[in-house]
Amino acid sequence: MAEGSPDASASSSGGEPPYPLHLQRLVEAYLERLDLGADRRAARLVEAMRYSLLAGGKRIRPVLTLAVVESRGAEPAVALPTAAALELIHTYSLIHDDLPSIDDDELRRGRPTCHMVYGEDVAILAGDGLFSEAFRLVLDAQTAAPERLLAVVTEIARATGVGGMVGGQYMDVAGLAADHDDLATMHELKTGRLIQAAVVVGALLTGADGGEAAAYRAFAAELGLLFQIVDDILDETGDSRELGKTAGKDRSQQKVTYVALFGLGEARWRAEESHRRALAALQGLPGDTTVLAQIADYILRRRH
Amino acid sequence: MAEGSPDASASSSGGEPPYPLHLQRLVEAYLERLDLGADRRAARLVEAMRYSLLAGGKRIRPVLTLAVVESRGAEPAVALPTAAALELIHTYSLIHDDLPSIDDDELRRGRPTCHMVYGEDVAILAGDGLFSEAFRLVLDAQTAAPERLLAVVTEIARATGVGGMVGGQYMDVAGLAADHDDLATMHELKTGRLIQAAVVVGALLTGADGGEAAAYRAFAAELGLLFQIVDDILDETGDSRELGKTAGKDRSQQKVTYVALFGLGEARWRAEESHRRALAALQGLPGDTTVLAQIADYILRRRH
Repeated sequence: MAEGSPDASASSSGGEPPYPLHLQRLVEAYLERLDLGADRRAARLVEAMRYSLLAGGKRIRPVLTLAVVESRGAEPAVALPTAAALELIHTYSLIHDDLPSIDDDELRRGRPTCHMVYGEDVAILAGDGLFSEAFRLVLDAQTAAPERLLAVVTEIARATGVGGMVGGQYMDVAGLAADHDDLATMHELKTGRLIQAAVVVGALLTGADGGEAAAYRAFAAELGLLFQIVDDILDETGDSRELGKTAGKDRSQQKVTYVALFGLGEARWRAEESHRRALAALQGLPGDTTVLAQIADYILRRRH
Repeated sequence: MAEGSPDASASSSGGEPPYPLHLQRLVEAYLERLDLGADRRAARLVEAMRYSLLAGGKRIRPVLTLAVVESRGAEPAVALPTAAALELIHTYSLIHDDLPSIDDDELRRGRPTCHMVYGEDVAILAGDGLFSEAFRLVLDAQTAAPERLLAVVTEIARATGVGGMVGGQYMDVAGLAADHDDLATMHELKTGRLIQAAVVVGALLTGADGGEAAAYRAFAAELGLLFQIVDDILDETGDSRELGKTAGKDRSQQKVTYVALFGLGEARWRAEESHRRALAALQGLPGDTTVLAQIADYILRRRH
């Protein structure tokens, strides 16, 4: 097995691979102080939204946005509203995914899921609210020329709709991923498009034109694939405590995954290949892409 | 009782009050041919979205948008993407409201609700999808100067979030409307803000400045209040078959309504007063507001 490939046995030796903590801290601090609605009457709804939003995690999507902005020579903090909006959207999708009628998950990042704590009704509305507030955040708090701001919001709307996240969630619940093609499409829609949006909006906010944005998207598309293959491997080999969720759930639910389709060995090889292609895609991008490469390394080697 | 006030006894005499059918037909035709995602793999999700979207109704929100555009001397059809987006958002809110863990409604407009036909998981995602597609629709299909388009999308995002529709839905499920103040706030958020958005975006798309937009909002706020008082009266006095839902549900669930708070007689008087104030607010608006007055009349006199 190649060094650095995802492997549960590595979990007892050494720490996590390097990660741009300076960007993660920026995101975390911004999310902590974010005003999601101050009316006392909605206090418990906002509490439910914050409960899920502030459950930790690596904040990969907003960190990607900030890393792209930084790589292009701009101050990462200028993109914080848009970066945070992507984390709100990711959180919204997790809350709805965890609902009893969808994935019926009781644990997320080692804590009871939103509906377990606040009830199903409030959890549905907390997801809905996070999605609205994500758009409001970009539109009310992000500074950029009107054309750039419109491009950013359009990218986010496309990434989350039927041709993106929601379409992928549907394919997942409907069990429509039966072969490799469908599996790839399902993940591309369910998680890939939002990861692409995270990278692309960083480029759009700092003035990238259509051609440049396409080069960023190519990198991000590979990153999304890599993320998913590793996710499937971790479900098979990971430790429930470290993952913060039940490991082996894919197998017990007979889900079609990269591991189920290709076996653990080939899945690991595919992850390595995807990682290699992601780094190659970085060659076509301007500026200092060291941090973007670090994120690709992290996604390959992460253990949860 | 004043002539034209909501009254179940009137349901057997005469037809519906006049309504701008030319605008309703424009909206209906546009919704019918709207592409909500062509991938065969999401076909059943799109079917669920269309099932709820094309269940009929007066299309009051989009018709309001088009009526404002028309009153300002522009071609109503230019605002169809934004007008339709408001109907998508209204439909999304109904689908989620009807879910078993929220209002647990099995009938809507005389047909089984979305989750009764497609299952709870698909219904949640159909709502989510309609919300995304609403933003996508405005951003991809609405022609307007970037500043105006941004103002429109911002208005919609604010109207739907914690300080708008979702916040009001939360107050409703949490049973937080215990007195008149809270009841007014709950409705202002749950239905009022989207009705305001429908009117205001029509003005914004046709070049209204902030001051003008505020005058339109004053009219729309009154219209929202009128709509809700009449809704409460109809629940008390209406006919289940004509309403397309179970009449008397508010009373049986001991909901705080205008009828429960003030009695039927005073609720009717309040509807008349609200209607009068709405017509008065029209005096401050430019152009020919005949159709807007007709919509206010319709909302007062409607029987479902």
